[in-house]
Amino acid sequence: MRSVEWYDSKVRMIDQRLLPAEFRLVEYEDYRHVAQAIRVMVVRGAPAIGAAAAFGMALAGRASQAQDRHEMLADLRTAAETLCAARPTAVNLSWAVTRLLRRAEAEPDTSAIPGALVAEAQALADEDVQTNRRLGEHGAALLQDGDTILHHCNTGALATVDYGTALGVVRTAHEQGRRVHVLVDETRPRLQGARLTAWELQQLGIPFTLIVDNAAGHFMRTGQVDIVLVGADRVAANGDVANKIGTYKLAVVAQANGIPFFPCVPTSTIDLSLPTGDDIPIEERPAEEVTSLTYDGQPVAPAGIRVANPAFDVTPYRYVTGIVTENGIAYPPFDVSLRQVMGVSA
Amino acid sequence: MRSVEWYDSKVRMIDQRLLPAEFRLVEYEDYRHVAQAIRVMVVRGAPAIGAAAAFGMALAGRASQAQDRHEMLADLRTAAETLCAARPTAVNLSWAVTRLLRRAEAEPDTSAIPGALVAEAQALADEDVQTNRRLGEHGAALLQDGDTILHHCNTGALATVDYGTALGVVRTAHEQGRRVHVLVDETRPRLQGARLTAWELQQLGIPFTLIVDNAAGHFMRTGQVDIVLVGADRVAANGDVANKIGTYKLAVVAQANGIPFFPCVPTSTIDLSLPTGDDIPIEERPAEEVTSLTYDGQPVAPAGIRVANPAFDVTPYRYVTGIVTENGIAYPPFDVSLRQVMGVSA
Repeated sequence: MRSVEWYDSKVRMIDQRLLPAEFRLVEYEDYRHVAQAIRVMVVRGAPAIGAAAAFGMALAGRASQAQDRHEMLADLRTAAETLCAARPTAVNLSWAVTRLLRRAEAEPDTSAIPGALVAEAQALADEDVQTNRRLGEHGAALLQDGDTILHHCNTGALATVDYGTALGVVRTAHEQGRRVHVLVDETRPRLQGARLTAWELQQLGIPFTLIVDNAAGHFMRTGQVDIVLVGADRVAANGDVANKIGTYKLAVVAQANGIPFFPCVPTSTIDLSLPTGDDIPIEERPAEEVTSLTYDGQPVAPAGIRVANPAFDVTPYRYVTGIVTENGIAYPPFDVSLRQVMGVSA
Repeated sequence: MRSVEWYDSKVRMIDQRLLPAEFRLVEYEDYRHVAQAIRVMVVRGAPAIGAAAAFGMALAGRASQAQDRHEMLADLRTAAETLCAARPTAVNLSWAVTRLLRRAEAEPDTSAIPGALVAEAQALADEDVQTNRRLGEHGAALLQDGDTILHHCNTGALATVDYGTALGVVRTAHEQGRRVHVLVDETRPRLQGARLTAWELQQLGIPFTLIVDNAAGHFMRTGQVDIVLVGADRVAANGDVANKIGTYKLAVVAQANGIPFFPCVPTSTIDLSLPTGDDIPIEERPAEEVTSLTYDGQPVAPAGIRVANPAFDVTPYRYVTGIVTENGIAYPPFDVSLRQVMGVSA
């Protein structure tokens, strides 16, 4: 079971909002509903939303009533805009949509475009799984028997098409027989660590301990963390890393304690078009994500208050030990090494 | 209305577990119930639990069936042990209980001990309010018109007998006419920031914005925080500060961004008997504090998982800009300045 897949001419996803209480599959036949699913986080995780958007483009191709090539490409560009507007920070979304658009443009037979888009989206999804496997192999070399890994948000099978990025690294080390233990940041506001990472690690039989995000510093300072592994939503050309809110604090505190900090990403998350992380758009999400939870049956905050809810933060490259990709680990200077793992000449 | 007070020969408290949804007063006639109230956090905040324990000692004195002085003091020592065992980290608890015990020992007329203990506890509570006012005056000098203060946990009237420590500083600046804005860390796991600090600031008319703890780094890095003010549960002789879990991360990230970090404490929170913060006991609280909240009506974590829940962390003195007390602000070297604010000769 993949987090997102093409099934019976529809896009099928696990509704990640309901986990761990309920495992429910949802299906979409309209790309606009896929965009909405990305926006409300039925599916989340940079690689997973990239794949979801690719399948959204496939739906758009099949649904198009275009009479000619020009209309078909116009329909696809409209779909591309809608899908890309769903969430701004993860570059995988526009990367995937652009790849599907290019495939359509390259297909000379207009009537073959819908089929070609389905095949391209499926290829992209399949590649994501293979990418994560290779990324896992590279990253697992960083882990030693007995290590405790501090992990933020969710980067497992659910955040990707399958297998995971940072958690894929942990999983590879576990499969290679190393004893690893994961300190799981619950990851407010949406608690992807508590809800999704804990659930995935439980299923995989990998030992873990859930903590509130506030406790991560205590465990780092008292020598109980060997390495910090996270995912990312966009990496700029200089190695600045946008990831789930709270990542920046972890990176700073890790460095203060001499603990290595490695984002783990497919190269599709690297955006060489942005010189620095200052150019990465940071999504502001609804206040209800912060105020809607209940504690002991009580609302968690007074009504009508002002809330700020940035969903991501930017970690400057100077706090990044290295960036694990499917093509190897990039180390500083990142302006050179990221181009190498991207296969771009300097 | 004080957070804890002597009323009709009973200890009366605001049940802080129910705020902001419900404002309910609870009364205790048995010191053992006061100890339990401290343990389950009906009352919390280092100065407030100190006052609650002092009133608990007063209840123990009145309830004693002792036939002689020896029995009376034995009863009081039993009560002192029970109260001090309720929570280990905040030193104000044992400080207050010890003060009440000394008062009993100093009272030559055994029959006068119960009355003396009530008077002593009331004096301690009154002094706490005056202490906070003086602390607020000293600290307010650190704040400039237009400042944004990042604040963790709750240090307001509820955390003390009245007025507050770090929030007392904010309140004093506000009363002096300076425009201040508070970024309120929600403060997982028990959300004292979202539940209590937001509620208090709302009532005081002081502008604030609620954020998840993870977002504090983003606001510091992007230049939106002028100063970090927190309370503390125990300050060691070298200036190491134990405070609510998550404080350490804030202090490290504040320093990385050149933002001053000031714990604000009554001198009753300073424990010169401990050379460093390594000697401060860190309370481990129940897993349910982490796992019992619900999000969108769903449980926040899978059942049966392992959870670690340290309630406090220690911030090494090198991250502390200064420590605001009722006797002035202590600056490094703290081994000298803390003795000065304590009125202890070097």
